[in-house]
Amino acid sequence: MIYSENDRVFLGHGSGGILTGELISNLFFYYFKNDILEEMTDAARLKIKSHFLSFTTDSFVVDPLFFPGGDIGKLAVCGTVNDLAVSGAKPLYLSCGFIIEEGFSLYKLEKIVQSMSEEAERAQVQIVTGDTKVVAKGQCDKLFINTSGIGSLIYRNKGIGKAENICNGDKIIINGSIGDHGISILSARNELNIKTNLMSDCASLNGLIENVLEKSEGIKFMRDATRGGLATVLCELAEQKNIGIELNETDIPVKEEVRGVCELLGFDPLYIANEGKVVIIVKNENAKEVLEIMKKHPLGKESRIIGELKDINPGLVWLNTQIGGKRLVDKLSGEQLPRIC
Amino acid sequence: MIYSENDRVFLGHGSGGILTGELISNLFFYYFKNDILEEMTDAARLKIKSHFLSFTTDSFVVDPLFFPGGDIGKLAVCGTVNDLAVSGAKPLYLSCGFIIEEGFSLYKLEKIVQSMSEEAERAQVQIVTGDTKVVAKGQCDKLFINTSGIGSLIYRNKGIGKAENICNGDKIIINGSIGDHGISILSARNELNIKTNLMSDCASLNGLIENVLEKSEGIKFMRDATRGGLATVLCELAEQKNIGIELNETDIPVKEEVRGVCELLGFDPLYIANEGKVVIIVKNENAKEVLEIMKKHPLGKESRIIGELKDINPGLVWLNTQIGGKRLVDKLSGEQLPRIC
Repeated sequence: MIYSENDRVFLGHGSGGILTGELISNLFFYYFKNDILEEMTDAARLKIKSHFLSFTTDSFVVDPLFFPGGDIGKLAVCGTVNDLAVSGAKPLYLSCGFIIEEGFSLYKLEKIVQSMSEEAERAQVQIVTGDTKVVAKGQCDKLFINTSGIGSLIYRNKGIGKAENICNGDKIIINGSIGDHGISILSARNELNIKTNLMSDCASLNGLIENVLEKSEGIKFMRDATRGGLATVLCELAEQKNIGIELNETDIPVKEEVRGVCELLGFDPLYIANEGKVVIIVKNENAKEVLEIMKKHPLGKESRIIGELKDINPGLVWLNTQIGGKRLVDKLSGEQLPRIC
Repeated sequence: MIYSENDRVFLGHGSGGILTGELISNLFFYYFKNDILEEMTDAARLKIKSHFLSFTTDSFVVDPLFFPGGDIGKLAVCGTVNDLAVSGAKPLYLSCGFIIEEGFSLYKLEKIVQSMSEEAERAQVQIVTGDTKVVAKGQCDKLFINTSGIGSLIYRNKGIGKAENICNGDKIIINGSIGDHGISILSARNELNIKTNLMSDCASLNGLIENVLEKSEGIKFMRDATRGGLATVLCELAEQKNIGIELNETDIPVKEEVRGVCELLGFDPLYIANEGKVVIIVKNENAKEVLEIMKKHPLGKESRIIGELKDINPGLVWLNTQIGGKRLVDKLSGEQLPRIC
């Protein structure tokens, strides 16, 4: 580690002067090192083979900054990588903007930067440009990160970003259990004195997604189920495409601990945030093939078909419940868990 | 206006659910409207003719949000447009990420979004993707904005991003008076009871810069003099390229009011932030030509040659003062004015 536990961020680290320069060369260049970043221009100069690009942005305000399974840095890389991947792009380059509260630990900042660098390497993307602002004590809560990203839109012809060709009979697949991220964050907050062994599912899904897109022709739509959870992805899709969506409760993987905490607090796992789950809509005849492909990837071992598209009840999402009833799945109103990502 | 003065931002506006959806369709789509944004994918799908791109990011935490000559929204667009332009790129697409404090006025948010949309139109860029997070009261100070941007690196062969070919005798040009932005912000804060008629110089410089790059072959380097001011740009350049830089104090345009406030508070205008000033290094024989081109543009009327590069004192910047002395211009240590951009 470069910094020790007593080192702090000063306002001057955001001044653009000597301290900013030190932070950039000691910390950011050291961990993010790549030729593009080290040109030290205000804007990164890129050469991209494709004319078709995907471009996305996300700000991360997760509280706490460190949680089982990750931290805000890993989350910021995964979130932006996943948004690019589900649009049919190969993620290539990320930017990163820090807003830091005066007095924040440089030691913790270094851990976060290190974690970003490790996740970027795992996801095979480069962090090529950045910005640091420091605000006075009390003007932000510890640290916020924005990551924006550019990808090469390799799979643009599959129309997956826009769900153009979805129809009755298409199957819905998810790559594992829902709610792990949200409930991990909640228990890491310690406010409710809930103890679990849960870990956030925070992961870069581009490897898994690329496998599926390379090997199957049946993919019609993909979306990562983050804020608002699985329910929000499907409710938006049903509404936008005016199609019915049927889910089978018994097929949706939910870990016992997630279910337990949700029951205790009156939450519904369908609405809890994930950070490593992708919802895939696939042609009926390709569903098994896609499932097999997904199960071979470490992040897809628990993949399941959880429902299908219907030409009844257009615009609605419903659940065939465990006890044999039907329950309407509504859009999330209000906020279940603020600062989950 | 869509919102009235009593409308407020709730935590639910950042949930990813119904309120987020309303904010996106009512506010962001209305003001930023363009086909790419309205595809409603998580990542914008772009088609760019060039393989050479410029990519940059900036977070804006300026306080106050509204100031003479602009607001945080205009600033966020100009800042990112300018970073792209000085790298030799034609700015094309921006992302925008909001971090908003619970309870913030929706009416003010609308004014800021409107202002972003107006400045984007002026600069001929499109805002194609975005993100909104809301944090609880007290966890951020009103509103922060991140804008990242992509440009097509049209003038990449001129090497201006990297200052590769600068040498003894090259002239330094700036497009007008320094310190206007910083001192406007300072007086808008009202803490010091300073009243001025100053306006921030906040402006998108891509039009001016494109003119210069189109019409002259002599440009060797460009940088916008934001945080840390003119001094910081030149000190960094002198150090990186191990060259001497001589400035003539009498040639550097400083408004009377800026000079006055600086004297009062012990600031040096050389270090005060600008948001509409570009420093250009140009071959000696092209300097007059470039100056003429610049003066024809509304944002370049006050352009001046303020100094030149020297093969003495490598790594240093010095000022020939008004009274005939020489003063070393050092890098900024510490922070003069936090939250200036």
